[in-house]
Amino acid sequence: MTSITLRELADSLGARLEGNAGLTITGIAGLATAKISDISFLANKAYAKLLEQTQAGAVILRETEAHLFSGSKLIVEDPYLCYARLSRHFDASYDHVSGIHPTAVIDGKAEVGQNVSIGPYVVIGRGAVIGDEVSIGSGTSIGEGTIVGNRTRLAANVTVYHGVFIGEDCVVHSATVIGADGFGFAPDRENGGWCKIHQLGGVRIGNRVEIGASTAIDRGALEDTVIEDGVIIDNQVHIAHNCHIGENTAIAANCGIAGSTRIGRNCTMAGAVGIVGHIEITDNVHFTGMSMVTKSVSEPGSYSSGTSAVPTREWRKNAVRFNQLNDLATRLKALESKHN
Amino acid sequence: MTSITLRELADSLGARLEGNAGLTITGIAGLATAKISDISFLANKAYAKLLEQTQAGAVILRETEAHLFSGSKLIVEDPYLCYARLSRHFDASYDHVSGIHPTAVIDGKAEVGQNVSIGPYVVIGRGAVIGDEVSIGSGTSIGEGTIVGNRTRLAANVTVYHGVFIGEDCVVHSATVIGADGFGFAPDRENGGWCKIHQLGGVRIGNRVEIGASTAIDRGALEDTVIEDGVIIDNQVHIAHNCHIGENTAIAANCGIAGSTRIGRNCTMAGAVGIVGHIEITDNVHFTGMSMVTKSVSEPGSYSSGTSAVPTREWRKNAVRFNQLNDLATRLKALESKHN
Amino acid sequence: MTSITLRELADSLGARLEGNAGLTITGIAGLATAKISDISFLANKAYAKLLEQTQAGAVILRETEAHLFSGSKLIVEDPYLCYARLSRHFDASYDHVSGIHPTAVIDGKAEVGQNVSIGPYVVIGRGAVIGDEVSIGSGTSIGEGTIVGNRTRLAANVTVYHGVFIGEDCVVHSATVIGADGFGFAPDRENGGWCKIHQLGGVRIGNRVEIGASTAIDRGALEDTVIEDGVIIDNQVHIAHNCHIGENTAIAANCGIAGSTRIGRNCTMAGAVGIVGHIEITDNVHFTGMSMVTKSVSEPGSYSSGTSAVPTREWRKNAVRFNQLNDLATRLKALESKHN
Repeated sequence: MTSITLRELADSLGARLEGNAGLTITGIAGLATAKISDISFLANKAYAKLLEQTQAGAVILRETEAHLFSGSKLIVEDPYLCYARLSRHFDASYDHVSGIHPTAVIDGKAEVGQNVSIGPYVVIGRGAVIGDEVSIGSGTSIGEGTIVGNRTRLAANVTVYHGVFIGEDCVVHSATVIGADGFGFAPDRENGGWCKIHQLGGVRIGNRVEIGASTAIDRGALEDTVIEDGVIIDNQVHIAHNCHIGENTAIAANCGIAGSTRIGRNCTMAGAVGIVGHIEITDNVHFTGMSMVTKSVSEPGSYSSGTSAVPTREWRKNAVRFNQLNDLATRLKALESKHN
Repeated sequence: MTSITLRELADSLGARLEGNAGLTITGIAGLATAKISDISFLANKAYAKLLEQTQAGAVILRETEAHLFSGSKLIVEDPYLCYARLSRHFDASYDHVSGIHPTAVIDGKAEVGQNVSIGPYVVIGRGAVIGDEVSIGSGTSIGEGTIVGNRTRLAANVTVYHGVFIGEDCVVHSATVIGADGFGFAPDRENGGWCKIHQLGGVRIGNRVEIGASTAIDRGALEDTVIEDGVIIDNQVHIAHNCHIGENTAIAANCGIAGSTRIGRNCTMAGAVGIVGHIEITDNVHFTGMSMVTKSVSEPGSYSSGTSAVPTREWRKNAVRFNQLNDLATRLKALESKHN
Repeated sequence: MTSITLRELADSLGARLEGNAGLTITGIAGLATAKISDISFLANKAYAKLLEQTQAGAVILRETEAHLFSGSKLIVEDPYLCYARLSRHFDASYDHVSGIHPTAVIDGKAEVGQNVSIGPYVVIGRGAVIGDEVSIGSGTSIGEGTIVGNRTRLAANVTVYHGVFIGEDCVVHSATVIGADGFGFAPDRENGGWCKIHQLGGVRIGNRVEIGASTAIDRGALEDTVIEDGVIIDNQVHIAHNCHIGENTAIAANCGIAGSTRIGRNCTMAGAVGIVGHIEITDNVHFTGMSMVTKSVSEPGSYSSGTSAVPTREWRKNAVRFNQLNDLATRLKALESKHN
């Protein structure tokens, strides 16, 4: 169990400490559930009343809320960011350096760095390069010539195809697939059906990229699919061949981005957004959940589509009218013209 | 091949038997395709006319339809439920107890129960506890300290992270990931980009839970993500960190539930429903397919959103009008006021 | 590195060659990025102006555009199809025949053909039949009695359950699951909750079928789920039990098709289309992205639903009006009747 004094936490966060500097903290928890050995935080003023009842040994909060808590506290500018930074201390899953399991099949022409953790039944192909302090979970497959940067962590049962580049300090969760073939087929008018277009590009992923579980990022047709530094991607996201995702963009679960689309920097996509292929989204665009994006977006801002669920009985009547909308509009116009 | 007499089937179902009690049944099939060695069933009156032509050796049906079939029959209250119960008899994939494959890597500090089936290349981490009669398919990874209850079946290539609790009599299908990190990041206003919030909670899954293929259930940020007893979840479902899914709720394929949302008991979600985070859905709510749920639901009943596909030519005209709806409504109101 | 003369390429494509027949080609690239050692192609007239600047050693183009390029060229009827055919030459990942890795666990009662590539930690169950020249990536699991046809390629970490039939010349990408249980449960009115319906059917997949990453095709309840010859399926597609997908149909990423639905031949589904269960879609139907398909379609053509993302501020006003649509229509009608 991790154990650290409040003074050490204050120093690591650059926080002003008020209260018991020698207090031993062994965990982090929400205000409502924290115990005396936990540190907690107030990120959202709406929860300030919990400060009166919390059992937390110490609380991280802003100067402006500091007077609301009489116990030990760390005063900072951004309690939520400090909570994020602290959370690393208490994540025991990051503590191991287990070496290379004897069952790992590492090609003689692959290079593996120092202080790595490579689990059972990992397979690393010819010419692959695995950086220092990389962690690879059991059953994960790394294709030929693929490069994995320092300190990157691949969970169990990840699949990275050949010719993929992954930068430093990345995280990739289980069942995620990087570098499978893009969905490229030419209609075969001579024989009917489809002729496969072999996907000869790769995938280039920057530094500090996090990719959730069961996500798929396809390799490019001729050039690479590109994910820039600092991009964060949730579970079950589909990124098609030749997409380009700009720095620090965040993509929530179940989103799908079709081929060759370019997303700018610092964009945020809520869950299940669908983006058509071959368009361009500028920087600082937000899409609300389940938006259907069919055109390029050149102005920053928030964009939406869809309608929210209502009782089925009401919905049915209105949904029928949707298919009469053009007719309704035409009739309204006709009526208006009678009044002019 | 499983073989059982009609009398034995009747006894196991508590059914009234009419006809040839000694008939040997070796399979179960629909009325249209059943052979003389099969038993079939009539669950939906609409198919009653198939009773005249079916080759089935015996049929399960209700008292009220019994006169429509002259062959051997089992008379029950709920033929569909009886079919479900019978289906277990004919599922050969449930018959094996294969022991522990010599290639399984089981940590010395893990505990494994009696009569288990553990396939090749399974990896079980330190402190994990595997119950009796558990079945684990090849390549599946069980993290440190994870608990798998008696008779639970994990298919091949499942990934269960550390600190996950799975109850008894559960089924988890391939490529599913339980306990990957929730999608938690704090905006880092000092350095730009995102700061990872390490996900320190776990996942707690009750008894008799079935989870389809390629589904992802994330671990909680501080507390656990919870799936209660009897929940059934289809393929490619995303359940974000700190969700709580109530007993016996059914979630069809491609649904996504964002973080900290609480779904009640006995809810049913058709395919591809999206539910926003931090809301609460009461018991006995049904969402029709592709619904976009943006607010808490406090009344039981059926809820819907979206519009159905129509010919693209017609759709295009109406979809354009959608973006004029507020204008149309305002103009209609203006016109109405001229008439008052 | 693959190396081939322009003459050999012309012969393999049946193209008319103009220019330097002895030119050595080592790669294929787009017009903008091609080097002198590459061949390129003009598939879309809109890019014709790139012909003036391209560094490509040779270009594939149509007779009608041939005069626009002064360098070496291959003249064909369908440059895009020729590009697709050529791409195979330059896909190094198809060149290996690596034999059977010693760690593969192949049941004594499985049959394996000639010239196969079977990677580390592959597991092949009892009674499975693996054809000639089949390639199976590391960690892939093949269930009991499953048949994999000649020249079919399964990537790493694929899961194929028992009793599945896969034809010849297919490709299946990583984390895809074929033959998991369909989502079949009977409401258990006696005990509450759900009673599992064991899924006794299999999956039958034709020849030349390509299936992307993280896709799930469930086994049938009593009969088989069927994917006909030449079907192409992208990533993260869900195909439920007892679906039937007709020849050469193309299904883009994130689509979901509910149980027992029958899709015709030569259909195309753009991304994230949802199709309800128990309906029938005729041949040659196209669904645009994110369409919600709730009824059978008996006429070929293009179908759509949904509305496109617009600025959230505008969307909000119109989305509110959606739920007043029936009221608006009724009021419009009332107003019209005053004018007659």
